[in-house]
Amino acid sequence: MTETENIASSTYDVVVLGAGPVGENVADRTRAAGLSTAVVESELVGGECSYWACMPSKALLRPVIAQADARRLPGLSASVQGPLDTAAVLARRDYFTSNWKDDGQIGWLDSIGADFHRGHGRLTGERTVTVTGPDGVRKVLTARHAVAVCTGTRAVLPDLPGLDEVKPWTSREATSAQAAPGRLVVVGGGVVATEMATAWQALGSQVTLLVRGKGLLNRMEPFAGELVAEALTEAGVNVRTGTSVESVTRENGTVVVVTGTGTGDRIEADEILFATGRAPRTDDIGLDTIGREPGTWLEVDDSLRVTGSDWLYAVGDVNHRALLTHQGKYQARIAGAAISARASGAPVQADPWGAHAATADHDAVPQVVFTDPEAAAVGLSLAEAEQAGHRVRAVDYDLASVSGAGLYADGYRGRARMVVDLDREILLGVTFVGPGVGELIHSATIAIAGQVPISRLWHAVPSYPTISEVWLRLLEAYRDN
Amino acid sequence: MTETENIASSTYDVVVLGAGPVGENVADRTRAAGLSTAVVESELVGGECSYWACMPSKALLRPVIAQADARRLPGLSASVQGPLDTAAVLARRDYFTSNWKDDGQIGWLDSIGADFHRGHGRLTGERTVTVTGPDGVRKVLTARHAVAVCTGTRAVLPDLPGLDEVKPWTSREATSAQAAPGRLVVVGGGVVATEMATAWQALGSQVTLLVRGKGLLNRMEPFAGELVAEALTEAGVNVRTGTSVESVTRENGTVVVVTGTGTGDRIEADEILFATGRAPRTDDIGLDTIGREPGTWLEVDDSLRVTGSDWLYAVGDVNHRALLTHQGKYQARIAGAAISARASGAPVQADPWGAHAATADHDAVPQVVFTDPEAAAVGLSLAEAEQAGHRVRAVDYDLASVSGAGLYADGYRGRARMVVDLDREILLGVTFVGPGVGELIHSATIAIAGQVPISRLWHAVPSYPTISEVWLRLLEAYRDN
Repeated sequence: MTETENIASSTYDVVVLGAGPVGENVADRTRAAGLSTAVVESELVGGECSYWACMPSKALLRPVIAQADARRLPGLSASVQGPLDTAAVLARRDYFTSNWKDDGQIGWLDSIGADFHRGHGRLTGERTVTVTGPDGVRKVLTARHAVAVCTGTRAVLPDLPGLDEVKPWTSREATSAQAAPGRLVVVGGGVVATEMATAWQALGSQVTLLVRGKGLLNRMEPFAGELVAEALTEAGVNVRTGTSVESVTRENGTVVVVTGTGTGDRIEADEILFATGRAPRTDDIGLDTIGREPGTWLEVDDSLRVTGSDWLYAVGDVNHRALLTHQGKYQARIAGAAISARASGAPVQADPWGAHAATADHDAVPQVVFTDPEAAAVGLSLAEAEQAGHRVRAVDYDLASVSGAGLYADGYRGRARMVVDLDREILLGVTFVGPGVGELIHSATIAIAGQVPISRLWHAVPSYPTISEVWLRLLEAYRDN
Repeated sequence: MTETENIASSTYDVVVLGAGPVGENVADRTRAAGLSTAVVESELVGGECSYWACMPSKALLRPVIAQADARRLPGLSASVQGPLDTAAVLARRDYFTSNWKDDGQIGWLDSIGADFHRGHGRLTGERTVTVTGPDGVRKVLTARHAVAVCTGTRAVLPDLPGLDEVKPWTSREATSAQAAPGRLVVVGGGVVATEMATAWQALGSQVTLLVRGKGLLNRMEPFAGELVAEALTEAGVNVRTGTSVESVTRENGTVVVVTGTGTGDRIEADEILFATGRAPRTDDIGLDTIGREPGTWLEVDDSLRVTGSDWLYAVGDVNHRALLTHQGKYQARIAGAAISARASGAPVQADPWGAHAATADHDAVPQVVFTDPEAAAVGLSLAEAEQAGHRVRAVDYDLASVSGAGLYADGYRGRARMVVDLDREILLGVTFVGPGVGELIHSATIAIAGQVPISRLWHAVPSYPTISEVWLRLLEAYRDN
């Protein structure tokens, strides 16, 4: 930028950097409060979730899960032994990503009265964002009240020589691929790795899952990863734990993975997916112009305001509190409300569970992993609760012993755990793993966020015969042991 | 009974009349408190629920629902267009009823140390039950502390001449039939009628559903019955509302139904199911010997003690508070605890939501109807809340607009409503209707029983993209309208 350059400039109450679900929700709330709001996005409005994460992954997984459910029911199972129609599943996935076009979401931004600026936005000083459009033209957006950074994360690839030439898949390619590779190596043991291994194995790939650690889904209770690993193996996935990748090359189109260090096995595949972590997209948003280090996670208080600033907010994955779409949207509602309250001089309700405090980020973050079995958890695992110094007891129950689970599927396998705070007699965490438990976790989210005492949970009667009756069994196990 | 007859007699702390799930749970609690307990049952231990209601009906319905789910998913749908394997579904149903044998449940009674008395039990005075065994031998059981009547209900048949000779189905035959009738007329519009119409239509019958009133499921929000009627019609059921039965005869094996009064249509069928209500099984339990009227519902207080008595309890359907297995079991836990507390002179916690008060019977009774779509509700409907004098607002949301619902099934149709108490800003009722909502209702049951305020429900974040995200949409709709 030179002094002679003629740059358009506009002033808004709020400038939102990044138009994923998080940015969209911040704008929704600031617009609802009557604040003029600009939204800047360099890629597709709707973000990672709409095009390369939640929506396409769940579109790929839903028929897989429904088929698995049907296969466990005599009278229906015989008809669903064959493979899924992969082309039809992919076409449905394409529909849910709007074929990677964002006209609909731009229309939505328009409908709430937010100004959309397509281009790469960078901070260029306090309360100032400079947008470089696709055509190279720049404009300067000044924020009277707040800039909200909602740029999310990108996949991290490991530091292996020559990896670029291999053209490995990240979550983006794994969710948007137009055909099932014959052989797919998945590296990682988290949500993306287990979900994509589940999906592509069912859609026709021979999947090998390479997990560096001992187990899968290691942010959940241990039995979650154990049950999912067992099911992946039964589905035909070659699950190899304790296995690191030493080198990856592509030879005549074939991916060659050498694992190691000790064994040095060689695995050939058609594609390789690295699902090995995320990094904040803060490396090229001008953090240096406001005295902050590019590429770092942005630490925030419970109103989502960046530590040490009175105008900069960081909302969603980029603040590293909980890398989940729904939690980012929750933060966005709170950040938008907090920005609006401060802009109008209204009181800020920043006490725990107040309207301007993302308290659930600490106590009640839910997650559903759409594998078969589904794994769903909210709040603290036993290990996390103990580490945090709570006096707790974990209560487990075998879901197969719940009538509703037996009716749901023959050979039902699953497990439930609740972690009880013994001092307050409330729940700190709940985990359900098993077919059909995905919609069950919200009951636990309400119990934890609502801090409903155990004595009252006895009066919340689960309908018979649903899988939810596991609640009764957990309470009984807590009472009797 | 003559004075010279030699009748065995035993004294127990507690005598439980009826060994369905309710009686079993009363005994479980009194035994846990160390009270000697006798359980009397004239039919199968495990009761209606295990053999002729919940278990077999859900075993029949689960494959139907899983097939319907699969049919709505491109990539899977083509394989499930054919009919279910009815024989396999019925065999699975037989498994879940233990082939109508109660050895397992008798073993369970034994394991908790309750004495089981097979036979017909009748009150023969205060605290006294006389059991007439299958061999005609009588014994007298005296209860030191309490007699708990848990005899449930039976199906009510309408007063139509010659109906006995028609051998109509009740819920018992409908859940235990060993083959699908070619043509089945179902009379009624409630849970049994809609569930059995759903099941048998899918299992091969041509079902005609005759409903006297305007709609189905009329104890739920009106849209529940509307959506279920629409789906039944699409599944091929001939749904005829506003239709009463004038006569039923069986001619050469064929059931002939004449509807009326005006039209007088004639419908032929192979079987007819009357699902037209329930009556308390109190007509032959000796109520007259304690100055009460046989055949009546037994009114109780919140500790499940019969009005005007200090030793007689009535638990489950027979008290007419909520004719649902899970609610009866809830009452049983509370009654058992209340009996035990009173027996030991411990304080009775009968305040609302106390350990000895079945408060949820008033405020938070949940129910799931396992039709396709599922219909699930808890608490008060809008009409009930208004009738009760609450200042309320109903908030509705189209479930098809929830991402998780769209992913769950193509062409998703469903609806959600929450009824908000405007004075206390808590929920009085929630209804979900749509595929896959059955496990979702427990979240609402916890919110209502826990009296979690709306302001706190905002912090209970639904996982994306589950159907549970309807919670967020309902809260937004409440906020914005």
